[in-house]
Amino acid sequence: MSKRIKMGMMGGGHSSFIGIVHRIAAYMGEQYELVGGVFDHDFEKGKDFANSLELDIARVYADIDQFIKAENALDPKDRIAVVVIVTPNFLHYEMAKKLIQGGFHVICEKPVTTTSQEAVDLENLVAKHQVVFALTHTYTGYPMVRQMKSMIANGVIGNIQKVDAQYYQGWINPVIHEADKRKSVWRLDPKVSGISCCMGDIGVHAFNMIEYTTGLKVEKVLADLDTLYADNPLDIDGTALIRMNENVKGIIRASQIATGEENNLTMAAYGTKGALKWEQENPNYLTWLEEGQPARVLKPGNDYNTDFAQSSSKIAPGHPEGIFDAMGNIYLGAAKAIKGEKYHSGAFPTILDGVRGMKFIEAVVKSSAAENTWITIS
Amino acid sequence: MSKRIKMGMMGGGHSSFIGIVHRIAAYMGEQYELVGGVFDHDFEKGKDFANSLELDIARVYADIDQFIKAENALDPKDRIAVVVIVTPNFLHYEMAKKLIQGGFHVICEKPVTTTSQEAVDLENLVAKHQVVFALTHTYTGYPMVRQMKSMIANGVIGNIQKVDAQYYQGWINPVIHEADKRKSVWRLDPKVSGISCCMGDIGVHAFNMIEYTTGLKVEKVLADLDTLYADNPLDIDGTALIRMNENVKGIIRASQIATGEENNLTMAAYGTKGALKWEQENPNYLTWLEEGQPARVLKPGNDYNTDFAQSSSKIAPGHPEGIFDAMGNIYLGAAKAIKGEKYHSGAFPTILDGVRGMKFIEAVVKSSAAENTWITIS
Amino acid sequence: MSKRIKMGMMGGGHSSFIGIVHRIAAYMGEQYELVGGVFDHDFEKGKDFANSLELDIARVYADIDQFIKAENALDPKDRIAVVVIVTPNFLHYEMAKKLIQGGFHVICEKPVTTTSQEAVDLENLVAKHQVVFALTHTYTGYPMVRQMKSMIANGVIGNIQKVDAQYYQGWINPVIHEADKRKSVWRLDPKVSGISCCMGDIGVHAFNMIEYTTGLKVEKVLADLDTLYADNPLDIDGTALIRMNENVKGIIRASQIATGEENNLTMAAYGTKGALKWEQENPNYLTWLEEGQPARVLKPGNDYNTDFAQSSSKIAPGHPEGIFDAMGNIYLGAAKAIKGEKYHSGAFPTILDGVRGMKFIEAVVKSSAAENTWITIS
Amino acid sequence: MSKRIKMGMMGGGHSSFIGIVHRIAAYMGEQYELVGGVFDHDFEKGKDFANSLELDIARVYADIDQFIKAENALDPKDRIAVVVIVTPNFLHYEMAKKLIQGGFHVICEKPVTTTSQEAVDLENLVAKHQVVFALTHTYTGYPMVRQMKSMIANGVIGNIQKVDAQYYQGWINPVIHEADKRKSVWRLDPKVSGISCCMGDIGVHAFNMIEYTTGLKVEKVLADLDTLYADNPLDIDGTALIRMNENVKGIIRASQIATGEENNLTMAAYGTKGALKWEQENPNYLTWLEEGQPARVLKPGNDYNTDFAQSSSKIAPGHPEGIFDAMGNIYLGAAKAIKGEKYHSGAFPTILDGVRGMKFIEAVVKSSAAENTWITIS
Repeated sequence: MSKRIKMGMMGGGHSSFIGIVHRIAAYMGEQYELVGGVFDHDFEKGKDFANSLELDIARVYADIDQFIKAENALDPKDRIAVVVIVTPNFLHYEMAKKLIQGGFHVICEKPVTTTSQEAVDLENLVAKHQVVFALTHTYTGYPMVRQMKSMIANGVIGNIQKVDAQYYQGWINPVIHEADKRKSVWRLDPKVSGISCCMGDIGVHAFNMIEYTTGLKVEKVLADLDTLYADNPLDIDGTALIRMNENVKGIIRASQIATGEENNLTMAAYGTKGALKWEQENPNYLTWLEEGQPARVLKPGNDYNTDFAQSSSKIAPGHPEGIFDAMGNIYLGAAKAIKGEKYHSGAFPTILDGVRGMKFIEAVVKSSAAENTWITIS
Repeated sequence: MSKRIKMGMMGGGHSSFIGIVHRIAAYMGEQYELVGGVFDHDFEKGKDFANSLELDIARVYADIDQFIKAENALDPKDRIAVVVIVTPNFLHYEMAKKLIQGGFHVICEKPVTTTSQEAVDLENLVAKHQVVFALTHTYTGYPMVRQMKSMIANGVIGNIQKVDAQYYQGWINPVIHEADKRKSVWRLDPKVSGISCCMGDIGVHAFNMIEYTTGLKVEKVLADLDTLYADNPLDIDGTALIRMNENVKGIIRASQIATGEENNLTMAAYGTKGALKWEQENPNYLTWLEEGQPARVLKPGNDYNTDFAQSSSKIAPGHPEGIFDAMGNIYLGAAKAIKGEKYHSGAFPTILDGVRGMKFIEAVVKSSAAENTWITIS
Repeated sequence: MSKRIKMGMMGGGHSSFIGIVHRIAAYMGEQYELVGGVFDHDFEKGKDFANSLELDIARVYADIDQFIKAENALDPKDRIAVVVIVTPNFLHYEMAKKLIQGGFHVICEKPVTTTSQEAVDLENLVAKHQVVFALTHTYTGYPMVRQMKSMIANGVIGNIQKVDAQYYQGWINPVIHEADKRKSVWRLDPKVSGISCCMGDIGVHAFNMIEYTTGLKVEKVLADLDTLYADNPLDIDGTALIRMNENVKGIIRASQIATGEENNLTMAAYGTKGALKWEQENPNYLTWLEEGQPARVLKPGNDYNTDFAQSSSKIAPGHPEGIFDAMGNIYLGAAKAIKGEKYHSGAFPTILDGVRGMKFIEAVVKSSAAENTWITIS
Repeated sequence: MSKRIKMGMMGGGHSSFIGIVHRIAAYMGEQYELVGGVFDHDFEKGKDFANSLELDIARVYADIDQFIKAENALDPKDRIAVVVIVTPNFLHYEMAKKLIQGGFHVICEKPVTTTSQEAVDLENLVAKHQVVFALTHTYTGYPMVRQMKSMIANGVIGNIQKVDAQYYQGWINPVIHEADKRKSVWRLDPKVSGISCCMGDIGVHAFNMIEYTTGLKVEKVLADLDTLYADNPLDIDGTALIRMNENVKGIIRASQIATGEENNLTMAAYGTKGALKWEQENPNYLTWLEEGQPARVLKPGNDYNTDFAQSSSKIAPGHPEGIFDAMGNIYLGAAKAIKGEKYHSGAFPTILDGVRGMKFIEAVVKSSAAENTWITIS
């Protein structure tokens, strides 16, 4: 095992919820060492946070520009090599841009940017500067999602002919029905959340799951979004009919008013020879349907899985792994890329996933506004 | 307990698959006595079948006209009172028309007719002749579907804000991919099956489930149907975006190319106070979600159920009932109506369900043909 | 299809709960015709009940002796051929004895008798008089239980090395904890229920399921029964360690104080090559485990099932059947035996199952009383 | 957040499977810093391993005696405070003894020792030297197991009247049926594994789960163990009838010949007011049964859970956590104890769980050898 990758972080301080998820994911594979960063826009708070983690205060910076300048002045062997971006969404683009241009690898929370144009910019910069850019679409890290991707790629279920992905949550129901309450929700404020709430936050996961597992591309969408109230500017529910290459039709369903649902993401792909179905809340089961055969239920850790799935679980069959393990797998994949080691295709989502996601979000919003007509994704 | 209702049957002879389902359903509640009918268009075969059931051969007829004439000549106390129609679909309308006009109650297999205009004709005739007309949308007979209907009517989940119904099967996959094979499937022949295969056969069940359980009406549809091959004239997969009264949006998904699926009909209704979810293949479970509460799983036979649900199960909790029991409940409801006894609203589907279903099928076909635009259901 | 078998019934009148279950089961296969019987020990009530079913009052009798005498005086082609016994348990033996001696076939509710000696008597009489004797261990009628039996017989899971059956209910919890209440429960009265409550009523089903599916015999038991209160004379919970032939060990667990459980009967058999697991409350699923393979879930109606299982379901895959259908299968099996037609081994439980069950009940009670020592089942 | 606890490790080097599990668990809560240890009995390999983790080689030792001597010579603020023991089982006792006597806190893999006497010795030493001793009975770290413990303690299901725990695996099936193969399995070698294989390895987890969740104590056991072959000295399957305080009876079932089972640990507790059921392979669901109520399914992260359960999950509802998270919770609990912070009762298993477990194992082996008689656990 080679040396740890020196890791920095933008955001993730005391007030951050998501920071700990990324730190745990980084710890899991023993590939990264958290060295410093800009943990808070309030420098003092950032330093205090660094102290709580017993980091070297000299590696805590007031802002990203100082971070880049100072780190790039260090001996390459001491310098932070990869930076995790877990700031509020609207800052992702500028930070990623500077970091890529500064020669840092980037691990970025979703959504990658607020527009597809920005995402394309980053795509070009990543290509130009030859850095690793990982986007934490966490669900792609589950072993059974990877098994699904592998089996489809191997032709196990034949040619795909129908896909159906769902992401249902109910969290916005308690705050959507009173005008005062819904005005106070930041996710419903276009200045903070951009052009979409439900599709931008979770519909895009369903979209990503479809493209990730099938290897196909969504070419057109026809969407019907729902704001439920006229004074609510953003969608809190929506359905998109999709058409993919190779003549595949499908559906993406998302909701934040699916009262009582927690995090009900599901993915089903039906092919000419069989089908595969997966549910995020029971991630250690993959159902394989085949005509004339009993349904088969695959679980992680078993030799019947592909190398990619097997290398994504850490323990013997029957010991459930969860969302932190999935994120850990993405960090592990990115580490291999950073170190120049060999890794499986799909080992971590890249800026290309970010570009695709932003284009999808823009297309569904456009379609819904245009009286539910078909919009082509370029 | 009062006397048995004398029952006749159109079709249902040796070559019929569905006849036995209706006979068992009729036997279950001990409300009906099968007396005679036109069991086969081949008179000799019909008589042979009647013999096998030890029926009085005098009550077996060569055709429906002879049936009506002869039965109506009998003393009213001996006369067949209700007639079950289980002939091929295209015969339903003419038979139902004659029977209603002849003063017979009718229990008719789905689809009720081949056009909505015919269904409306029957609706008017039923009203005029004051007969009972039951349409065997079997799934509405399950206790937990009825519990769902009751709970929604009682306001348990508040105002509905989102519905999602699915009916996925895979049976057509083995025959759709070769031109010769798909040409030989009667369900894909418009002359036999009418304007739709998938939506007409199963999508309409999902539609019916939505209107039955929520009590709301679908006002508009936007559908995308799939024939998979250009030379296949009928849909074998389709999705309909729907808009209902009271500002409710929803989705109806149906497929016969969902490879490996058997009879995967599901229904979910999300309201301002909670949600209810049900699956046909596990019909004895109803999941009730409510914010801030553990998911609750209701089962038949328990006192916490409504009267309607309780009166739809025959045995103590924990003893599963199935599809025949569901059909039996519909026969029981129709028997009460025929006898003039009191029955729960929803105890059996009526001609109105038939009219709604035909209008839905016509609307989704029209929408899909019209480049996926919104079509209003009158 | 041949003529209906003329069927009589002992008990099953207005006050009976179980009568309707048997009538429905008899109707389902269209093999039986209910003709008459002794529906109530109160003759007038029995006649009134017969009227409600529109039976010929001449075939309703005051008691079993008159029934036998009168029916045997009829022309054999008119005479009742099979009699269903659904009276209180303590009457089963005397009635069955008289009926067998009178030349009637018998379909008897469980438990067959109150002692194993009585059961052996009936076994001998059945052999002597060459009648069909079906014991309605209903759960053996489920298609997937029959599939399990067939697969084990076919060697699919190799040699059995471990069995585990459970039957958990909670119904007695609400009445067991107060002395007054528990004294009023007839199942806890030895004069009515015999020597055992829990093991006699439901433990014996678990025992039967083990012997039915594996084809092995329980040779010895060591049981620990629980009455919970010193003044309660009968077990309301119990576990039996078992030893079967071919060196197989196992466990039978039963409880009526498993609070909140409805009818949770499960059966698992582990063999050298694989395992099979089934649950009564989800009867349409059979889980097949095999080393190095994904779990497989078998469902009724599919061609991969054995002939025995396939002939035990009436409809296409994905349409759930339930407990009435299971009982119907037993009636269908008995009908074939009565008519002298060919039937699958295991098509209906016989007097031999009754003998085995009674010996099991006596052995577990004896073992528990003898400080939990091993008792051999002869 | 206070400073990291300096952590050492005995074993866990390159050839260890379990080491990584403990390291991840330690990383998760950001409470520990791995500093050094004796990673391998081969000193060179141990140092190489330390290098791979970029540890200070000065803190890697040739053996435990050098470890203790050197670390105790350090300034207390630099000294390793807690030592994780993940060596082969037979070394646990001696190492733990020395470490406790040396003033180190200990986190020890299961089984704690090879005899109950040794465990009692450690219990006394822990008390004398006032160190924290955590035993990694991992399954007690799951949020829903902790919820079960809390709910029972709060009286939600009333007085317990029946418990049933199962731990079924199938891993030994492929190697047990051939004499050569079974002789080569170290778990079947009494010199390495002690007096029991199945009960010692997994039955004890089921036992621990019962005592952990109910707070009751097993007083007597009657066990029937199975070696399957006469030349196999150790049990590979077994059932124990148990009697607990407060008049509770129960069953512990364990098997390693439950072919095809992976890690099927389940726990059910039935009380006078309700029941709770949990399954390790679906750890994020806790089923709560109550008379006259629908079954309720609790999930982590929801406010309806107790503080103890809530503090044992790290993320919003609907995001599954797994076995590493469970182990992480135990490490977090031990960290609080080591730091002198307040922690929930049950936050980590202690030496007392180790003593109870060893006594249970000895009792079941004794009972089975003594013709399945009752053995009292002191």
